[in-house]
Amino acid sequence: MEEELITKVMHEVMKRVGNGNGATAVAQVEEVKTASPLSNIPAELVQLTEFVGAGMGDTQGIVIANLDPMIHKLIGFDPKFRSIGVIGGRTGAGPHLMAADEAIKATNTEIIMVEMPRDTKGGAGHGNLIVFGAEDVSDARRAVEVTLETLPKYFGDLYANYQDYTENQYTARASKVLKYALGAPEGRAFGLILGAPAVIGMLMIDTAVKAADVEVLGFASPKKGTSLTNEVFIWVTGDSGAVRQAVIAGREVGNKLLGAWGQVPKSATGNPYI
Amino acid sequence: MEEELITKVMHEVMKRVGNGNGATAVAQVEEVKTASPLSNIPAELVQLTEFVGAGMGDTQGIVIANLDPMIHKLIGFDPKFRSIGVIGGRTGAGPHLMAADEAIKATNTEIIMVEMPRDTKGGAGHGNLIVFGAEDVSDARRAVEVTLETLPKYFGDLYANYQDYTENQYTARASKVLKYALGAPEGRAFGLILGAPAVIGMLMIDTAVKAADVEVLGFASPKKGTSLTNEVFIWVTGDSGAVRQAVIAGREVGNKLLGAWGQVPKSATGNPYI
Amino acid sequence: MEEELITKVMHEVMKRVGNGNGATAVAQVEEVKTASPLSNIPAELVQLTEFVGAGMGDTQGIVIANLDPMIHKLIGFDPKFRSIGVIGGRTGAGPHLMAADEAIKATNTEIIMVEMPRDTKGGAGHGNLIVFGAEDVSDARRAVEVTLETLPKYFGDLYANYQDYTENQYTARASKVLKYALGAPEGRAFGLILGAPAVIGMLMIDTAVKAADVEVLGFASPKKGTSLTNEVFIWVTGDSGAVRQAVIAGREVGNKLLGAWGQVPKSATGNPYI
Repeated sequence: MEEELITKVMHEVMKRVGNGNGATAVAQVEEVKTASPLSNIPAELVQLTEFVGAGMGDTQGIVIANLDPMIHKLIGFDPKFRSIGVIGGRTGAGPHLMAADEAIKATNTEIIMVEMPRDTKGGAGHGNLIVFGAEDVSDARRAVEVTLETLPKYFGDLYANYQDYTENQYTARASKVLKYALGAPEGRAFGLILGAPAVIGMLMIDTAVKAADVEVLGFASPKKGTSLTNEVFIWVTGDSGAVRQAVIAGREVGNKLLGAWGQVPKSATGNPYI
Repeated sequence: MEEELITKVMHEVMKRVGNGNGATAVAQVEEVKTASPLSNIPAELVQLTEFVGAGMGDTQGIVIANLDPMIHKLIGFDPKFRSIGVIGGRTGAGPHLMAADEAIKATNTEIIMVEMPRDTKGGAGHGNLIVFGAEDVSDARRAVEVTLETLPKYFGDLYANYQDYTENQYTARASKVLKYALGAPEGRAFGLILGAPAVIGMLMIDTAVKAADVEVLGFASPKKGTSLTNEVFIWVTGDSGAVRQAVIAGREVGNKLLGAWGQVPKSATGNPYI
Repeated sequence: MEEELITKVMHEVMKRVGNGNGATAVAQVEEVKTASPLSNIPAELVQLTEFVGAGMGDTQGIVIANLDPMIHKLIGFDPKFRSIGVIGGRTGAGPHLMAADEAIKATNTEIIMVEMPRDTKGGAGHGNLIVFGAEDVSDARRAVEVTLETLPKYFGDLYANYQDYTENQYTARASKVLKYALGAPEGRAFGLILGAPAVIGMLMIDTAVKAADVEVLGFASPKKGTSLTNEVFIWVTGDSGAVRQAVIAGREVGNKLLGAWGQVPKSATGNPYI
């Protein structure tokens, strides 16, 4: 009974305190299973018209119908984007990019800002801030909604244990967000192979390029291309089958290294999509 | 009774482990109410003459009477500042700047170093390191004391829940610290409107500039003007009433967004000053 | 009995959640005492030939026998290093540098990459990624093994409490890793004097240079020479007795300031070596 109590407290603690992508993501598994990303909104918030919803990754989505021209100027946004949709979370930069990429396909918006803070709540990686520009507020709102709805899919291939994570992403057709943020060619396959801490990423990227004939678009490490995160990753393009194969090969060795800390890493949602 | 036990353990855990400005600040509320920032010093420490005191924000203040000339040269301090006072904490960069600004008004010191690490103990923001230069050690000591004593006031408008925070600062007359660190015009009103994660800051700054006729002095985001924090903020000047109004308007929407995570954000001290 | 239960849960929580170098290091004390750094490997991992072992500092060591030429090109490694050994952890950058420096003395390898992310699991400092290049895989593996075996020694002079840490390192003869990463002169004495948060480092470095006639090789602070960590440190050379004396003097005042938070800081292993 004492054991049971300890387990109960531990669960509650890990949920609240988090420990980077890992613990947070794992804690969110249950929430995702029992609640849509748009639920859980206190009644008083209904009166804040800018609030669209909360989502996985300690994320909120908002919309601003008529952005003040002073803010346009301050950040350098094109004045034609009267409305903006904003997504921002503390964890899960990769899933956010992927979900926003889906949203841009599905809506009449443009991507006008992508910034990745060093965050993940004490974890090894990035938080995120993504802004869609639109001429019409309903378009901006729709982009935010699609992103929030799509986030759980892309958290599916984030594997974590209490210590660290591997992040694996794949799409057959990259769109404007992946082009804007990572220089991915539009309409072609895209894959992300990422491990944290960085040592895990080193084996993942080597394994990935050996596994399939892919073209490496970029490389990032703690001092190069990241916000000083403890990650190593590459992103690749090429034949869609090859890209998928490279991602899967990287994921496999990465998760084995993660497991060396004595806990089998789990998909953040229980539903990997790759 | 089991529930009670869990609550007790949770409280202890959150206090010790912290989770960014939020949990830490909330945990500190009680301490501030029951103890002055200068108490809690173990007896053995009385013998370390450099130690001045501990304060809110996981902060210590020290004084060095005769700084070694090698250190002056290494950091680039003017040799005329024989003594230095140093304040440094892991959380609450804004309150520290504001409190140091009060200290510089009240003492015969100059501000010679302000650096903001990426910290907050796993939270979304900055820690801090602030150095006062003085020709006389008693002046340096006094600056540190005033800063420590004044800190709780400026934590009063830091609102946090387990997830994130808004930080709101206001003074009718900025002094040399705010000028040094943020380019604020001396003697004029100053306001800071800040939200974390960055998405919350986006709505706060737009709301603030719409609410009152203020002049924006600067803008910061994860990749611009911060140490890669998950924050968006502006700092403003103008008519003191307008500045105050802008800060209050930003605070209001920011705290509503914070509340969307299901927990009403609280002032870190229970005594907001704006 | 309730007290006992709380203590038990707290211990478990601190171990899992960590709180930067501090809590993590303290939690590891017991592990180090009861298990070699190479134990604790789940059976399934035996099949991953690249895995060498896990070590203090949330660290893993791996070896890649035939690094893909595409990766050589991507990172800029000399193609003659067919094999690489990689060490990477989330905490304890200093101990890793020191242990890798021992490994380079003992093996036929070269140091080809040292990167320090902003990490320590919510703590104030750096994680690490260190790569050895070798023409023969057995040399690369040996370098990783020596690093892992040597790590606990250098964690011995990392003192931490729940809040922060001081890090003190000393060697009579620096080798190629310290030269590569910090410009230390090979074959001469080397000392590191470091405190976190930065305010503690300020007193440590002043005390250290006053205590002995040493030559300061470098200075680092949140905005200069660190990855935005909340640390201040110097590294020094000179007569080996003087270097040791400077490190010890810095350590002494640093640990007194740490203790001002009401908890005596402890060596991460219980076995300081300086």
